[in-house]
Amino acid sequence: MSVTFAKGFRAAGAAAGIKPSGALDLSVVIAEEPAPAAAVFTRNGAAAAPVRLSRRHMEISQGTIRGVTLNSGCANAATGEVGDRAAYDMAAAVAGALGCEVTEVLVCSTGPIGPQLPMDKILPAMQLLVARAEPSPSAGRQAAAGLMTTDTFIKEAAVSGLGGFRVGGMAKGAAMIRPSMATMLAVVTTDAVSSVQRLKGVLSEAVEDTFNTINIDGCESTNDTVILMASGRSGIEPSPEELTKGVRTVCAQLARDIVADAEDCTRVVTIRVSGAADDGSARRMGMAIADSDLVRCSFYGGDPNWGRLVAALGACGEPLDASRIDITYQGTAVARGGIHTGVDLSAVEPLLAGDFAVDVAVGDGPGTARILTSDLTPGYVTFNAEPS
Amino acid sequence: MSVTFAKGFRAAGAAAGIKPSGALDLSVVIAEEPAPAAAVFTRNGAAAAPVRLSRRHMEISQGTIRGVTLNSGCANAATGEVGDRAAYDMAAAVAGALGCEVTEVLVCSTGPIGPQLPMDKILPAMQLLVARAEPSPSAGRQAAAGLMTTDTFIKEAAVSGLGGFRVGGMAKGAAMIRPSMATMLAVVTTDAVSSVQRLKGVLSEAVEDTFNTINIDGCESTNDTVILMASGRSGIEPSPEELTKGVRTVCAQLARDIVADAEDCTRVVTIRVSGAADDGSARRMGMAIADSDLVRCSFYGGDPNWGRLVAALGACGEPLDASRIDITYQGTAVARGGIHTGVDLSAVEPLLAGDFAVDVAVGDGPGTARILTSDLTPGYVTFNAEPS
Repeated sequence: MSVTFAKGFRAAGAAAGIKPSGALDLSVVIAEEPAPAAAVFTRNGAAAAPVRLSRRHMEISQGTIRGVTLNSGCANAATGEVGDRAAYDMAAAVAGALGCEVTEVLVCSTGPIGPQLPMDKILPAMQLLVARAEPSPSAGRQAAAGLMTTDTFIKEAAVSGLGGFRVGGMAKGAAMIRPSMATMLAVVTTDAVSSVQRLKGVLSEAVEDTFNTINIDGCESTNDTVILMASGRSGIEPSPEELTKGVRTVCAQLARDIVADAEDCTRVVTIRVSGAADDGSARRMGMAIADSDLVRCSFYGGDPNWGRLVAALGACGEPLDASRIDITYQGTAVARGGIHTGVDLSAVEPLLAGDFAVDVAVGDGPGTARILTSDLTPGYVTFNAEPS
Repeated sequence: MSVTFAKGFRAAGAAAGIKPSGALDLSVVIAEEPAPAAAVFTRNGAAAAPVRLSRRHMEISQGTIRGVTLNSGCANAATGEVGDRAAYDMAAAVAGALGCEVTEVLVCSTGPIGPQLPMDKILPAMQLLVARAEPSPSAGRQAAAGLMTTDTFIKEAAVSGLGGFRVGGMAKGAAMIRPSMATMLAVVTTDAVSSVQRLKGVLSEAVEDTFNTINIDGCESTNDTVILMASGRSGIEPSPEELTKGVRTVCAQLARDIVADAEDCTRVVTIRVSGAADDGSARRMGMAIADSDLVRCSFYGGDPNWGRLVAALGACGEPLDASRIDITYQGTAVARGGIHTGVDLSAVEPLLAGDFAVDVAVGDGPGTARILTSDLTPGYVTFNAEPS
């Protein structure tokens, strides 16, 4: 169940020929009526053409849009004016098929940075794609499949039982994942009744502790986009808290799936930081730990090498009293007051055979954070050494 | 030729039993007379006990010291008060053997973070070590060998012909290398005549464009230390520029050797950034490129994946006009004005078979930087996944 789970949305996916493999690579998500929407985008200074176009369209349309078109197989980033024109033409093709303004259509792209989109393949496919869009689960699934790059499974999530309204969503991973404002591509739909203004707050809050707390490889993408649309078709107008809860639940599942499907990873590691000066400081500390190649190598080895966490904490620029650091792997305290507890580290290794959690307490401040990361594996390196 | 190349210094290395392998793991470098010195240390907030001790000793002694003792096999970091005492006892043992103040001795340690030093092995070895210290090249080489952790070769450098004075030095790599103020351990000696004040400026300047421009894995150590001592034994008092030139030459060779010996690396990549607002901005951009796992995977593959460099530049927080980026691999322009030049990228791959250079121009500002990094390899990951 995906973006078509919420009432009032149609979707489709197609193989337009962008990917040489012939796999699905072009998707649309369409609201049956103009829908209030919110979006967050990468803060990367080399933001891709579709990001820049979608930002502008959200401004001009004042957040009321008809749909999104997304492609995989090419990021349309570092493509100059030709790329700007391609992003516009993708939006215009959807708008033409729907009979709406071009500014009511957003565009997302993902894939290698640098190549130009094959517009000769995309434009002819677009009319048919929009015509084929359906509200069925299988159509939602096809749309989600059309986003995949190196993902090994389709990422969908849905939630109901929230007082009569539904939320669904889809996303793609699987590398160049280090959230800034948002991360990767995701489209989340709801049939709740909501204003644009409320959606902005809801999306911002939901993204903050879901997509913005994952870190696969420390590499922030040029194309990160999360879009939330509300059809209002349930007739229910939930409170901001209820709506945030629904959207956050979907975002959290998609975010975790992205980490679980990190290129060649063997485990998901949850880093919980507590005792920092504030939540922002705790998050920067957690991200610094997840940024460290040496830490993520030790995760791959299932090695409770807590000294590498201490070094990463010390290097991240946050205020730190190294003599206050407590570190616990999967429930076993290995360091307290900044030094080894004396526990036999080789006895901790068996606890780290699968996914595990590391608790890092840095003092008695109120700041906490929870970061999801994956291990760094030889397979990740080999995979990303291949010309794409 | 190493730290004993300059006149007025003695050195020794010994196997004290810190390393289970029985390899050399304890060294001293001794000035025959109290010598003006300068030192730079890691800015890591979890700085190791020997770093904190050496900083204090440099203050108390006002920069005139008798020697340095160094050990490998244990970083004496995250070791609390026991570690503080161990660092002090190492300095005191050398001071006792030399008949000088304890504050005239600096201490450096390198190795795993967390374990305590085996002082029962170190202290008995120290008296003998100091007694055996000699001014010979082989003694200098033994001292350099005593620093090695995962290094595969000894890192020594020496330069003369600078108007009558000499400079020599030794260093160790080979991971957790991402310079902050200084990086790794290095001891540089000269027989030039110089004041403490002048040495400070000379070392700061020499380190800035040598050790501070290398980046192996983005991980800043808890133990980085570079120490420069001047015996004055040549009788020559060079100008600050001459002395800086000599010290910089030695530091540059040691820094390059560290990158060339990066754990399991297959090539050294030189990243040259130009056109930035200022040198600091250029350096941060170059470091961001070297920090990127995806970029360093592409270096391993010999793949001119310039789009990943664009993404790293966009994510680093420096002012950027993505439409001004030019990227050249080993002399072949692959991107100009932020987009692909159209050159066949597969034809560039053969140029990247060994060490290579990447030129990144980001505008028309005066800022330039040169960063040395290594590739990220599956072997690096496998190696660092092993419990140490």
